[in-house]
Amino acid sequence: MLKVLFSAKPAAWEEYHAPLNAAFAAAGLDVDLSRDQVPAETDYIVFAPNGPVKDFAPYTKTKAVLSLWAGVETVVDNATLTQPLCRLVDTSLTQGMVEWVTGHALRHHLGIDAHIHGQDGIWRDQITPPLAKARPVTILGIGALGAACGQALTAFGFPVTGWSRSAKDVPGLRCLHGDDGLKAALTDAQIVITLLPQTPQTGNILNADSLALLAKGAFVINPGRGPLIDDDALLRALDSGQIAHATLDVFRVEPLPADHPFWAHPQVTVTPHIAATTRAETAAEIIVDNIRRGETGRPFLNVVDRGRGY
Amino acid sequence: MLKVLFSAKPAAWEEYHAPLNAAFAAAGLDVDLSRDQVPAETDYIVFAPNGPVKDFAPYTKTKAVLSLWAGVETVVDNATLTQPLCRLVDTSLTQGMVEWVTGHALRHHLGIDAHIHGQDGIWRDQITPPLAKARPVTILGIGALGAACGQALTAFGFPVTGWSRSAKDVPGLRCLHGDDGLKAALTDAQIVITLLPQTPQTGNILNADSLALLAKGAFVINPGRGPLIDDDALLRALDSGQIAHATLDVFRVEPLPADHPFWAHPQVTVTPHIAATTRAETAAEIIVDNIRRGETGRPFLNVVDRGRGY
Repeated sequence: MLKVLFSAKPAAWEEYHAPLNAAFAAAGLDVDLSRDQVPAETDYIVFAPNGPVKDFAPYTKTKAVLSLWAGVETVVDNATLTQPLCRLVDTSLTQGMVEWVTGHALRHHLGIDAHIHGQDGIWRDQITPPLAKARPVTILGIGALGAACGQALTAFGFPVTGWSRSAKDVPGLRCLHGDDGLKAALTDAQIVITLLPQTPQTGNILNADSLALLAKGAFVINPGRGPLIDDDALLRALDSGQIAHATLDVFRVEPLPADHPFWAHPQVTVTPHIAATTRAETAAEIIVDNIRRGETGRPFLNVVDRGRGY
Repeated sequence: MLKVLFSAKPAAWEEYHAPLNAAFAAAGLDVDLSRDQVPAETDYIVFAPNGPVKDFAPYTKTKAVLSLWAGVETVVDNATLTQPLCRLVDTSLTQGMVEWVTGHALRHHLGIDAHIHGQDGIWRDQITPPLAKARPVTILGIGALGAACGQALTAFGFPVTGWSRSAKDVPGLRCLHGDDGLKAALTDAQIVITLLPQTPQTGNILNADSLALLAKGAFVINPGRGPLIDDDALLRALDSGQIAHATLDVFRVEPLPADHPFWAHPQVTVTPHIAATTRAETAAEIIVDNIRRGETGRPFLNVVDRGRGY
């Protein structure tokens, strides 16, 4: 019998234990899933970075640590973690992200907020937005999520530029990379979407200098990670009109404190880290599939590269 | 030299005369385009239903009436109109409609308004919308516009049902027709988009009975024609919670009078007939192409069938 430790918050146990046990049964695996295992006898750890396990050294027999989260930046530098760490790469999470990003991109493109706020009996039909084909979009980060969002926007005719630190090629997108590529990707962009992983290299990638490269009145959409944006620089760019509106789903501190100026700024929309929400059934199947791979001698999927940090 | 009468409002003349003359020149046609022609010598009429020509009888030599509008319901019953009447079918208009419809469908699907209105410092992360694949959408009217919108929504995974009066087949959509099909199409739909032409048969197609078939808390999006909806029935369905929100771009009277209850209703978004806006350059090329077809003995495109009314 495999011993699997569940190390996450109690609410996650309530959400996940039944779907995980159902997925173990469906996979034909005989598993003792528990929040309490003897460390030296634990085969696998189902793990959330905000759960109880902080020291992985006693887990001498553990074959893999399977994250319930896609983002692993808070655990990747843990020196006691020598076991393989697998990120959650959930295609339904990608689908949710595509819907959220496209919805907010179209919202800003079409100027929908002005109509929502303008229900005052005045018929304002003078302003026609351009078609999507005349609205350049840049996506910083073209991993699985960024690439899928870019291709969804391309289908509407938006000219989409994707940027990544090292060279990548995503069909349908103009792909740029490196420091020179970043400058070209941001110059005159009207919508910027940040979907980079959080690493020392990506911190504050949207700052006063880079925001100034965008087209006047551009829109910023951040469903990636809070530290990708220099908050103060963004607030100044909003006040100057350089940025027309920012829709932000992630923050340096979450929940975003009630006194943070983003909440009160009329040109900022705060959403509560919902752009890509993991659904328990789907996540359980993905985690169990990885355990089955380990038990049948196949390589784990989505093992984190500690050097890159994701 | 061809004599082409321009019969539309003065503002339309300002917008269209240069693009039309440029398109005539590009097509190699020698044309006198004017707002003042001798009726019996007029070859073609470029026409808007709100322009000066109401009696077509004196235009004995006129080969075709080319509408600047897609909707021709206000002229199709004019008994003096015996010349071929061509609707404007503009692919950039279709593209604009796809962007508007998808933007508002995703806005309602994702519950974006609650976030726009809820910038009060409270982190509300408890409600996860379903994925699009669990949100059935029904489009009433699957002509060029409805079919394109349906296919765009299908690409996000929405299960889309299209309904038309007579049988049609649009790849990717569940297509229903006729009275029985209408009932099946509306039952349990969570988003309904009305893109039917305005005919005696389509008036009030969304009424108390048909709105009651939808899923509780459904969304109504009308970029088609105002009379497709029974306004009073919609207001009652909004007040009862049967309909969660209506986004309406077209009305029985336009501009929508400032005292109409739609403006004041918190669950109605009025937009000023902008879902599909004709761009002058594109429209001019389409109209000139049809005149060239007439002058070279080819059949006109998009001739209105008076019997069907569109």
